[in-house]
Amino acid sequence: MGANAYQIGENNDFNVEVYGVAAISVVSYGDAIGGDVNPELNKGPVIENESRIGFRAGKAMTENIDVFMQVESGYVDNVDWGHGGVHGGVLGFRDTFVGLKGDWGKVRFGRVLTPMYEIIDWPYANPGLGASWDWGGDVAYYYDRQSNTIRYDSPSFGNFNFALAVGRDDDANPSSQSSSGQDNASKDSYFYGAAAHYRFADMVTLHAGLEAAQDFRGSADVDTFGWLVGFEASLPAGFGLAAAYKSGESKDKTGATTVKSEQDSYSVIGQYWAGSLGFKLGYTANLESEVEGVKQSDEDSIISGQVMYVVNGFVPYLRVAQRDIIDWRGENDDIVVRVGLEYGF
Amino acid sequence: MGANAYQIGENNDFNVEVYGVAAISVVSYGDAIGGDVNPELNKGPVIENESRIGFRAGKAMTENIDVFMQVESGYVDNVDWGHGGVHGGVLGFRDTFVGLKGDWGKVRFGRVLTPMYEIIDWPYANPGLGASWDWGGDVAYYYDRQSNTIRYDSPSFGNFNFALAVGRDDDANPSSQSSSGQDNASKDSYFYGAAAHYRFADMVTLHAGLEAAQDFRGSADVDTFGWLVGFEASLPAGFGLAAAYKSGESKDKTGATTVKSEQDSYSVIGQYWAGSLGFKLGYTANLESEVEGVKQSDEDSIISGQVMYVVNGFVPYLRVAQRDIIDWRGENDDIVVRVGLEYGF
Amino acid sequence: MGANAYQIGENNDFNVEVYGVAAISVVSYGDAIGGDVNPELNKGPVIENESRIGFRAGKAMTENIDVFMQVESGYVDNVDWGHGGVHGGVLGFRDTFVGLKGDWGKVRFGRVLTPMYEIIDWPYANPGLGASWDWGGDVAYYYDRQSNTIRYDSPSFGNFNFALAVGRDDDANPSSQSSSGQDNASKDSYFYGAAAHYRFADMVTLHAGLEAAQDFRGSADVDTFGWLVGFEASLPAGFGLAAAYKSGESKDKTGATTVKSEQDSYSVIGQYWAGSLGFKLGYTANLESEVEGVKQSDEDSIISGQVMYVVNGFVPYLRVAQRDIIDWRGENDDIVVRVGLEYGF
Repeated sequence: MGANAYQIGENNDFNVEVYGVAAISVVSYGDAIGGDVNPELNKGPVIENESRIGFRAGKAMTENIDVFMQVESGYVDNVDWGHGGVHGGVLGFRDTFVGLKGDWGKVRFGRVLTPMYEIIDWPYANPGLGASWDWGGDVAYYYDRQSNTIRYDSPSFGNFNFALAVGRDDDANPSSQSSSGQDNASKDSYFYGAAAHYRFADMVTLHAGLEAAQDFRGSADVDTFGWLVGFEASLPAGFGLAAAYKSGESKDKTGATTVKSEQDSYSVIGQYWAGSLGFKLGYTANLESEVEGVKQSDEDSIISGQVMYVVNGFVPYLRVAQRDIIDWRGENDDIVVRVGLEYGF
Repeated sequence: MGANAYQIGENNDFNVEVYGVAAISVVSYGDAIGGDVNPELNKGPVIENESRIGFRAGKAMTENIDVFMQVESGYVDNVDWGHGGVHGGVLGFRDTFVGLKGDWGKVRFGRVLTPMYEIIDWPYANPGLGASWDWGGDVAYYYDRQSNTIRYDSPSFGNFNFALAVGRDDDANPSSQSSSGQDNASKDSYFYGAAAHYRFADMVTLHAGLEAAQDFRGSADVDTFGWLVGFEASLPAGFGLAAAYKSGESKDKTGATTVKSEQDSYSVIGQYWAGSLGFKLGYTANLESEVEGVKQSDEDSIISGQVMYVVNGFVPYLRVAQRDIIDWRGENDDIVVRVGLEYGF
Repeated sequence: MGANAYQIGENNDFNVEVYGVAAISVVSYGDAIGGDVNPELNKGPVIENESRIGFRAGKAMTENIDVFMQVESGYVDNVDWGHGGVHGGVLGFRDTFVGLKGDWGKVRFGRVLTPMYEIIDWPYANPGLGASWDWGGDVAYYYDRQSNTIRYDSPSFGNFNFALAVGRDDDANPSSQSSSGQDNASKDSYFYGAAAHYRFADMVTLHAGLEAAQDFRGSADVDTFGWLVGFEASLPAGFGLAAAYKSGESKDKTGATTVKSEQDSYSVIGQYWAGSLGFKLGYTANLESEVEGVKQSDEDSIISGQVMYVVNGFVPYLRVAQRDIIDWRGENDDIVVRVGLEYGF
């Protein structure tokens, strides 16, 4: 979005920007979100408005330190029940931070993606693979966007760059006893993350990430560890290919013995562009998770195809996905269809 | 507001605007909101801040398709308990959509007014008639602002134009099981709406609207239908007159037999301008509703007068209304006094 | 912030501004927020993002009346549980009003600080004294930011100016029976406030404030009264000194006999600037409260030191405070450390 952000002027040397993304789609989940087991959960087609608005302001503090800030709303029609029913239309829902940058890299304090999740989200969750790949796993071993995070992103060293982060959990519903509300944390709950990116031969980029947490999401005695490796390749004649594998484990020491859960997942995405017309096909799967080495028969997968057309900077798309998902609602399989349009400004 | 919106510039061909309305008033409801029955509900005078802020961004996609979006907050001091306690200060509370337009009209996807409710709200609810006319009825048969709506507005064909909409209910309090939060919907709950406007002799405009819903507000087996006709007339010597009649029914098929409820309502508003000084007088009534043909002794009415003065684009006003309202709190009659100021930017 | 606000242009004669404050800090409360009694409440270091975004728009209405409005969000990562869990990222959380001004002063309608609390907050709560001085008292006798307020601020009469306010409580959690949500009020609950400021010899400013309420915070039969006196002095050689004393009482007439509670508090702050490097040292204490003349052994205090450095308009700071606090969680003493950066735009 940096390239698109609209600079509304300079004031006292501050660059101030308002920016946003317009993103609308009509989607029908069919039985894929619980309707196989409970037909009432099949709610029919709905409109999802994932548009958001943000603000940025910054200026140079010293010759080699720029100070910058960002405040961004969430999707304007969503509610985050995991955080106590916060409406997406509040400012500070998505990446919201104050940072410093220079030719030494940049460091941000606040609410940002973890380095590993950033790779999970892009390029490996699109088109429409997130319900399995992002948040569909049966073993939880990574955060996504976290409020209590300090994250460092290196400058490019030739074709290489990396990111490091340390943060706290804030997944508990903030309670009235919290002195500061949203940015809750649990004593002894910390996570550590890293990512590395390397590009070679001008056509292949390798991505790797890892994330370790103690007292994951504030659960005393639950430690987690996960890693991801992946690549993106630009092939001749308009073709492209990307794939990633991730694996994680959770050790629950609450009881008399430690219970170890593990799960592996992968995502494979091909694309083809014929001028302004693009096609994307993705497949992702969570393999059966294991608890103390015993398989749990909980594998799920999504295969999804997308057709898109670039016209004067807009990219309307049609996406059709077959979801085979097993979650707390049982096994729910169906075709999900989405038609949408998105643009940043 | 379109005319007033402030364009903050162009970026990558996008027109980006921030706009808003400042609207403050001091109001005393007296016993009109329940105090007749329960004196504790008479809370004394309060300040209502109905100000809101919005953003727009768009550009041409093709020669005859412009893409546009709008995100607007609610009233900055309100809470919408009907939607789970969403604060008015969130973005996305009022009309929030992405749309396409051209000389063929415009279509919007997202959160907009229904065609019939748009007429109910203006010109027939001002000054201060809404508590009976808008939302005071005893038979519910129309939505107001709905998230899951696709609405088409025609261009002007001479003096005629029309609007069509199809949408879903989202009145249920979004639950944690919802995949997308705010934009909830219930299976099989749909509504269909239309409006038409015709102007003749340069002084009279006719308005008509209708709205039909199945599984209204997500209630299985409750179907509704309603219609409205009205006119506005500019009379000589600074006088004006407007009146509308609406009628609706609700069929509840939950039990062994279908229960049919009906209610009719009307609104009549006269105005007179002497230079910058304006007067408005309105009367509205909900007639007795009928359940299976049996009258329910639940009629209510409001008579309201308003004095306003235009000064350099501002319109401060004083409004005095006699409300005779019967609702779930019992019969509550009193005079409501409001002093306020409103301006768009 | 007025001087820093960024004017994004004029539209139809309206000046429209977007402004904001970026404020980030890393803070460790140690045991000071309950950890002495309940170690689980010691949550370890967290990041607090007190950044906020606001909008202003106004223009002249007559030769001597300018109309202005402001809408400001709260801290983007906070939640106000006292008001029903409103997220700080909503618009309308901090000072949000419509007002009129001229050479006769200014009057604001909406959500503003009370005149006395404005003095409590500045200059007497910084650095880091608020947990005792602002909101740590055992006898509640003043509001802070109130929605249902009309506040008048005089122009300067030479070195003197004053402010007057009248308002309503809105501390109750808004309920679904409220017609207007957030701006709730209780019948017969009113407050009255005043402040005066006098500067002499170009180096000393005196501040005084008072506030009286009936049915304080909507509690029938609880009346309160409080006052504050203080001074600020610019001393030679970069030194400065400020101190204030406040005293208040609450009379609870709920039972058969009136119960009177009283408490006194003071705050003393010294500062020293050596060029761009500044030091601040503050001490505040709530003296033992008395209920019907009986001392309650509930005194608390904070001593806090701050080092700050001005660099190109930014002021990074380090603050270390020893808190000795007795509240509903018991006695909790510890050192609070905060490192932060703040700037307005």
